[in-house]
Amino acid sequence: VVAVDANGADLGPGEVAAGAAQAAQEGVRVLLFGPASELGAAVEGVEGVQVVDAPVSIAKSPDPARAARAHPESSIVQAARAVADGRAQALVCAGGTGAAVAAGLFNIKRARGVFRPALALVLPVPGRPTVLLDVGANAQARAEHLVQFAFMGAALSRVVLGVQRPRVGLLSNGEEFGRGGPLVVEARSELLRRLSATAEGGGAAPFEFVGNVEGGDLTSGAAEVIVTDGFTGNVALKVMEGVSSTVLRAVRDAAYSSPRAKLGGLLLAPSLRAFRAEIDPEGMGGAYLLGLRRLGVVPHGRFTRRGFAEAILRAERGAREDLVGRTHTALEQAGALRANSPSAPTASLPDRPDE
Amino acid sequence: VVAVDANGADLGPGEVAAGAAQAAQEGVRVLLFGPASELGAAVEGVEGVQVVDAPVSIAKSPDPARAARAHPESSIVQAARAVADGRAQALVCAGGTGAAVAAGLFNIKRARGVFRPALALVLPVPGRPTVLLDVGANAQARAEHLVQFAFMGAALSRVVLGVQRPRVGLLSNGEEFGRGGPLVVEARSELLRRLSATAEGGGAAPFEFVGNVEGGDLTSGAAEVIVTDGFTGNVALKVMEGVSSTVLRAVRDAAYSSPRAKLGGLLLAPSLRAFRAEIDPEGMGGAYLLGLRRLGVVPHGRFTRRGFAEAILRAERGAREDLVGRTHTALEQAGALRANSPSAPTASLPDRPDE
Repeated sequence: VVAVDANGADLGPGEVAAGAAQAAQEGVRVLLFGPASELGAAVEGVEGVQVVDAPVSIAKSPDPARAARAHPESSIVQAARAVADGRAQALVCAGGTGAAVAAGLFNIKRARGVFRPALALVLPVPGRPTVLLDVGANAQARAEHLVQFAFMGAALSRVVLGVQRPRVGLLSNGEEFGRGGPLVVEARSELLRRLSATAEGGGAAPFEFVGNVEGGDLTSGAAEVIVTDGFTGNVALKVMEGVSSTVLRAVRDAAYSSPRAKLGGLLLAPSLRAFRAEIDPEGMGGAYLLGLRRLGVVPHGRFTRRGFAEAILRAERGAREDLVGRTHTALEQAGALRANSPSAPTASLPDRPDE
Repeated sequence: VVAVDANGADLGPGEVAAGAAQAAQEGVRVLLFGPASELGAAVEGVEGVQVVDAPVSIAKSPDPARAARAHPESSIVQAARAVADGRAQALVCAGGTGAAVAAGLFNIKRARGVFRPALALVLPVPGRPTVLLDVGANAQARAEHLVQFAFMGAALSRVVLGVQRPRVGLLSNGEEFGRGGPLVVEARSELLRRLSATAEGGGAAPFEFVGNVEGGDLTSGAAEVIVTDGFTGNVALKVMEGVSSTVLRAVRDAAYSSPRAKLGGLLLAPSLRAFRAEIDPEGMGGAYLLGLRRLGVVPHGRFTRRGFAEAILRAERGAREDLVGRTHTALEQAGALRANSPSAPTASLPDRPDE
């Protein structure tokens, strides 16, 4: 069962409901939170979708952490509670990344031994999809956070993309004067230490660490997983989206610049459409919210039903393949779990929602 | 007179010499440092270019700061000294950004009251060229550094792009949970305070501060100047270059996917060439090294003679239009100069080369 918050989507809760109906037709059961009056039509008669009336939305709140605390009746908090209670095994939030992170932290809680959750996105690079994390769950990170992100990202690459031993790189600046900075330098040596610990314990390294990579490697295929703090990751992602659409717009403009170019554009269009489809973010279903006790998937608010359905299917698959548990095992073998944190699955010390 | 280090270019010192010859033909006098045996042919009989034999190169050094100290005979250190001595008014370094920053810091020294130099690049966004700084002179920054970068970038936008009152934005992450982080938050309020100080002193604000901008705004035209730390700026720049060439390659590949597409590509090619020319980094001459007592320009090592000539012309123009002096005046009016730092032009307390 996947708990879905239908509020916050640009096209309205009905579009999310339509996505839920599509996912249900592929066999996923959905618990759908949102304004019942706007959801009913899309899921009427669809087996596997249960609507819970939750009209209050905090998706657009300027202070999501405060809003998630103040509004337990909001759709995202109710959805997160359903996951925390075990009524659902994964969370999908249709809009408002901040609200999803806050509601997830306070209700589902951080996974045992995990410092911080991270948002991981599979960049739709043709022929070489690449996991980038954190793309914005936290604006700041310490070295041990980046170390954990590497293990989380590697587990995601294995489960979602089927890469058995992903190459993991640490995003850094280039050849210039002050290479890396202390965060990258520290994370790098800490990562090497953790991989040695896994090897000494007799475990197989869950990934190959390829050291520092640069911004250009988001699209070069130099690594299957690229690790960075949420500030840099978010800037990099937005630059990527902006440049990609600017260049494609320029190509289209070029195709209107003369009758000759116009004909050329028409002839080229079908082949370009294939490329556009390949880089369409809806195909990936959105960003994975990793590091909580259960999996979350956060599609972009501007998605259509196709993207929301994909998000629900991916959440179900990630839960079924135990992405959270596999990440925990890898972190444990590397000794990369947070100290003073219970590592036995039965322990239940309360995690603080944030530090 | 522009002092040019010819070492470090991918195509060799001769290519830089050819660029110097082109610039000299447009009236700029050049002091050219490099291996005389490889420079002579290109500048023979060209008036205005004087060759200084300096075969030692530190362009590829893994530790440019140490190399710049250990090799006073290297071409970049000799070129920087020529600028420091007043034999030349601006510096151009053909390869090795790190070496240029180090040699500049140690020999030309930081401008009075400036904390840190910055590398500023005019992003060749068609129709809306945008200044991004720092793209990698320092991996770390404090809020007061970013504040100074805003004034430096605004002065560059005015002098180089002719924008009378540029809009300046602070690069930040998006709508997500931990918006901005402490560096951005502090820099933002500090910038507002400095602009008020200018207004209270009766001065005209040298730019309009538009607050935070996101990665997508590198190409959106939301600001003429975008300020960030050198780590983030370098990552953003490399992402931009990588995505831009990946998308253009995909368009070319699409044009080979079928005979129909091939014909389309051929018809579209001339219009696309215009776009490619517009975004060609050689047209901008490279990155500006700001914050020293004299102006520097750092073309990319892979440039051809055309790019090197452009770099020399831009360095000459920036020096003639007193970019350094104008930046100083704006910083002074805003009270944004470093405390304990002499602001009178005649003072000469030694600046430490680095902190």
